[in-house]
Amino acid sequence: MKRVMLSVAYDGTAYSGYQVQENARTIEGELNRCLGDLLKEDIKVIGGSRTDAGVHALCNVAVFDTQARMPGERMSYALNQRLPEDIRIRESREVGAGFHPRRCLSRKTYTYKILNTAFPVPTRRLYSYFTYVPLDVGKMQEAAVHLVGEHDFKSFCSAGSQAESTVRKIECLEVTCEGEEITIQVAGNGFLYNMVRIIAGTLMEAGRGIWEPAYMKEILEARDRRAAGPTAPACGLCLTGYEFL
Amino acid sequence: MKRVMLSVAYDGTAYSGYQVQENARTIEGELNRCLGDLLKEDIKVIGGSRTDAGVHALCNVAVFDTQARMPGERMSYALNQRLPEDIRIRESREVGAGFHPRRCLSRKTYTYKILNTAFPVPTRRLYSYFTYVPLDVGKMQEAAVHLVGEHDFKSFCSAGSQAESTVRKIECLEVTCEGEEITIQVAGNGFLYNMVRIIAGTLMEAGRGIWEPAYMKEILEARDRRAAGPTAPACGLCLTGYEFL
Repeated sequence: MKRVMLSVAYDGTAYSGYQVQENARTIEGELNRCLGDLLKEDIKVIGGSRTDAGVHALCNVAVFDTQARMPGERMSYALNQRLPEDIRIRESREVGAGFHPRRCLSRKTYTYKILNTAFPVPTRRLYSYFTYVPLDVGKMQEAAVHLVGEHDFKSFCSAGSQAESTVRKIECLEVTCEGEEITIQVAGNGFLYNMVRIIAGTLMEAGRGIWEPAYMKEILEARDRRAAGPTAPACGLCLTGYEFL
Repeated sequence: MKRVMLSVAYDGTAYSGYQVQENARTIEGELNRCLGDLLKEDIKVIGGSRTDAGVHALCNVAVFDTQARMPGERMSYALNQRLPEDIRIRESREVGAGFHPRRCLSRKTYTYKILNTAFPVPTRRLYSYFTYVPLDVGKMQEAAVHLVGEHDFKSFCSAGSQAESTVRKIECLEVTCEGEEITIQVAGNGFLYNMVRIIAGTLMEAGRGIWEPAYMKEILEARDRRAAGPTAPACGLCLTGYEFL
């Protein structure tokens, strides 16, 4: 028996999220199906980040145990032959039997893309959130500063979260602008349910001038989801980094 | 009666090309349908660049005549309400009655994107050509130099072209690299059938080291399609600039 870790990239457009669900197409569901086909075993992967429906990833993680003789390093090639073209394995390798992606200390980076143009660009519609309302990137940057560090992010957590504590540490939160595309990049060791999308929605409110950047402190203090901005749409979000520490 | 010009952006993935065809979904077909609905007239647009199936555009051009009272400038908003989300009108405006996009002198810019990574990236698969074979960008740049200027591009023209002359002038042909993405940008006042995709396919052969950069001169001199490289896949190509001179 060996444990194998996969690094998984996907376009989340056509999926009901990462985590396996009955009667819905999910990334884990596709991995289980293709691994079962390949290894002739009943495989149930243990997932890393449970991205929502429509969210993308460059490097999510899945782990599984198998008795197959095939070396773990070779499985990526064999799996990519079977997977649909919107899911690709970047790497497969054998890991220790005790390795569990959600129990190991990790650092995840999410990137949220906003297209701030006068009209939507069709070739970008699936991978960025479009808004024609002009956003002040300077104000978004000022607002972001208040969220960096360890805070109680209860205001930035959707109902339905199973987290015991809502305290999290954001190591890095940057807002950059290149041409007409605004990128929010956030890194930390753990995020609450919808936290990154609520941060993106809240920073956009600051960018629109609805809230002053310093108001972020009051939102944190409120510890109430209703105090923060809307949950930004899923398509703008991508899991772009996943390291184990 | 007035003539209106549209600037049209689209994701070509789901279309059988720009030009109207019977029994196939095309960009012009969608424009004709939505303009007919909006203006209650039988509209047949005159298209600009006839992009192939799967090719994208940020700014293709369509022109039509109408007796509608609606100002040309307002039509973009009304059309975007009716068009599928993979087609968007950037701008609409009234032009002179004699204006014909393919008969006016214009400068078009095409961009061809190549993703040169070890594995395909699902979120890029529809908008770039993926190859894991390492490409030498320096060699592609050297090869490109030989194609700039006025030449007989018969070797870079697919069968089925109706062009009388195969002499064209490339004003600018640049190969750049950012991270793992290689971009070929080419500008000129006219291109032969599949010319940009054959240039991209040929520059990639130079990038792979199959042909020395100077061999481009021999390909031009051959005046034979078989002398050049393969036609690169449509998905990497986008019409990114269209100016009338």
